[in-house]
Amino acid sequence: MTISSLALVDSTLREGEQFALAHFTTAQKLHIAEMLDDFGIDYVEMTSPISSPQAEADLRAVAATSRRFRLLAHTRCRLDDVRHAVDAGVDGVNVLLGTSPLLQRHSHGQSIDQIVESAVEVVTWLQERGIEVRFSCEDAFRSNLDDILRIYSALDGLGIDRIGIADTVGIATPNDVTETVTAVRAAVGCDIEFHGHNDTDCAVANALAALEAGATHIDVTILGIGERNGIAPLAGMVARMATVGPQLLERYRTDLLPRLDNEVAAMVGVAVPFNAAITAPTAFSHKAGIHTASVLRNPATYEVLDPARFGRRREVLLGHRLTGRHSLRQRASELGLVLTDIQLHEVAAEVRTRAGRRPLRSDEVDALIQQTALGFLVPVNAMVAHAGGHV
Amino acid sequence: MTISSLALVDSTLREGEQFALAHFTTAQKLHIAEMLDDFGIDYVEMTSPISSPQAEADLRAVAATSRRFRLLAHTRCRLDDVRHAVDAGVDGVNVLLGTSPLLQRHSHGQSIDQIVESAVEVVTWLQERGIEVRFSCEDAFRSNLDDILRIYSALDGLGIDRIGIADTVGIATPNDVTETVTAVRAAVGCDIEFHGHNDTDCAVANALAALEAGATHIDVTILGIGERNGIAPLAGMVARMATVGPQLLERYRTDLLPRLDNEVAAMVGVAVPFNAAITAPTAFSHKAGIHTASVLRNPATYEVLDPARFGRRREVLLGHRLTGRHSLRQRASELGLVLTDIQLHEVAAEVRTRAGRRPLRSDEVDALIQQTALGFLVPVNAMVAHAGGHV
Repeated sequence: MTISSLALVDSTLREGEQFALAHFTTAQKLHIAEMLDDFGIDYVEMTSPISSPQAEADLRAVAATSRRFRLLAHTRCRLDDVRHAVDAGVDGVNVLLGTSPLLQRHSHGQSIDQIVESAVEVVTWLQERGIEVRFSCEDAFRSNLDDILRIYSALDGLGIDRIGIADTVGIATPNDVTETVTAVRAAVGCDIEFHGHNDTDCAVANALAALEAGATHIDVTILGIGERNGIAPLAGMVARMATVGPQLLERYRTDLLPRLDNEVAAMVGVAVPFNAAITAPTAFSHKAGIHTASVLRNPATYEVLDPARFGRRREVLLGHRLTGRHSLRQRASELGLVLTDIQLHEVAAEVRTRAGRRPLRSDEVDALIQQTALGFLVPVNAMVAHAGGHV
Repeated sequence: MTISSLALVDSTLREGEQFALAHFTTAQKLHIAEMLDDFGIDYVEMTSPISSPQAEADLRAVAATSRRFRLLAHTRCRLDDVRHAVDAGVDGVNVLLGTSPLLQRHSHGQSIDQIVESAVEVVTWLQERGIEVRFSCEDAFRSNLDDILRIYSALDGLGIDRIGIADTVGIATPNDVTETVTAVRAAVGCDIEFHGHNDTDCAVANALAALEAGATHIDVTILGIGERNGIAPLAGMVARMATVGPQLLERYRTDLLPRLDNEVAAMVGVAVPFNAAITAPTAFSHKAGIHTASVLRNPATYEVLDPARFGRRREVLLGHRLTGRHSLRQRASELGLVLTDIQLHEVAAEVRTRAGRRPLRSDEVDALIQQTALGFLVPVNAMVAHAGGHV
């Protein structure tokens, strides 16, 4: 299951714009595109220009910039839609059409025969103009596998650049993705893009499963913003690849991830999730005594990602109620001090007692260590500190 | 891969307490335990009472409450530690010890032989007292499989209640979990608990893989708070199970999840992540025209979770720049109005133009629909609305 290929398609300016709280201005869109270009993103996908005059103006503005990424518009499977996208100056078009019985019935009313027909028409039109084209089956994981294989095979026969498999509602499990992408991989020779929503908290794992089964392109957004609770976040995808295929990340400026996440979070008015991989404020904070003592000796004990590679710094928290003697001994030695076992017990009890009221800053912890080493630690409340008998 | 069994072990009061920003008071711990009991949680795991007098007092306080869940203390593999836990009144003890070469070297210095010896001693001591006992290999996914199988088999031979497999550093992929849990499942007859960190954004998917391979117990915390960026969130795990094993959720009050997440978020001073499954403010918000039009006809088109089951409400956003004609037609019919195609174009253009400045509230959108139906819609800026030519 070695992953040999990865292209990142950032859809912050399309899927991300569909996040309930996102209302990007043209200037913000240009800034996001520029940050993504600095990061080294492979593709930027934007909202269909037919959706509003503003969407068209924004697409044209980004198309006119000097950039290394390839610019895609995301459109319905209609000649009028893709014509507008091509007019606006895109490098490629990401076409989609719902293929699940639910979407056939309640969204567009087309049969699979009609879907194949309109897909062939639109793809051919784009190919004749030398435009990169992807066709995606929306809601692929509630579609009949035979139906989508038929559509993909027909388009692969035309020499399409890429087909897309979308978990539009976030229902797929990693095993579902393995199964479907494996079947599609066996049926087509073109590239395969995966787009997965996060409704059941598996967006990144599903993208990984897609890559392992032969997908080549992964849709992400900055922070993971999108419809409902979003899709695979760029930083999460990078964190995942960092352990399973680090060589595929070499061309990206992964140190820019904190900036991307923080700036977009500010634009849409959310906090960077406390549990975001890499970019969460505490993603590299170590707290429990058993963790901090080992991390101070060797960070790899409790870290699989090196914070320095991602523009982050490790934080070893020593001023709380779980602070252990071993961590304080380690910190003392960093300060050039050696504490006896009795002194360690003494300072650990004192830190935990004081931290029962509020967490201590690292300079406060250092001061307590120094006072202990010099023999003039004054407990704030000896009665409380020793009440339990085993501090 | 049908999942036949699921017990949820909530570790908010242990792993969650190791979250950098968590400093729960005794009253808060009691309140969290009570909310988890109302939810119907199977187990609550708390910090080892030996870590501080406060930890011991808090454990005793929760042990003394009337509750349906089984109370566990999380301890090192030492007689002194488990003795304190049993004294405090727990129903079970979750013992752990690092088994990876890194943790053997930098944390405790014990060989695998020594680990087996001390595990057997501690487990036997607890069994003699009728206390439920789990032994977990910390950092199992960087341990030698042969080593952990040897440890698990020895303890299974003693009739241990449960062994634990911990992805302490968040390195495992779902395939890694499948492989390891399958091997352990084949080697032991006891229950299997899985504990997975989220460093590479796969915590929930890994827990699912564990269950599919035969694990029986899953560690979660409210919101997913824990060391670094945490572990599998309770709500995320519930969302995942809702599509793959809904019958296993019947005994839980899933409608209480928003309350649990919101209250704990307030206690630790973070926002509920915008991308949390189920409990994110916008988890059931639909925005793009292609989505809203279908959702208004049949919510299942773009929803795999029914918000009502989780104490949430669906929100169909119609006052933004991506609002489509079909959604407005649907909303108009809900208001008892029928718009012509020309009127729909007119009101859609007006909504998008006004929303270019700021998103509209639903009552503002309704007013525009009504004005259009009555023939007195006054565009705020006809020039802007028609500038692009295809509104």
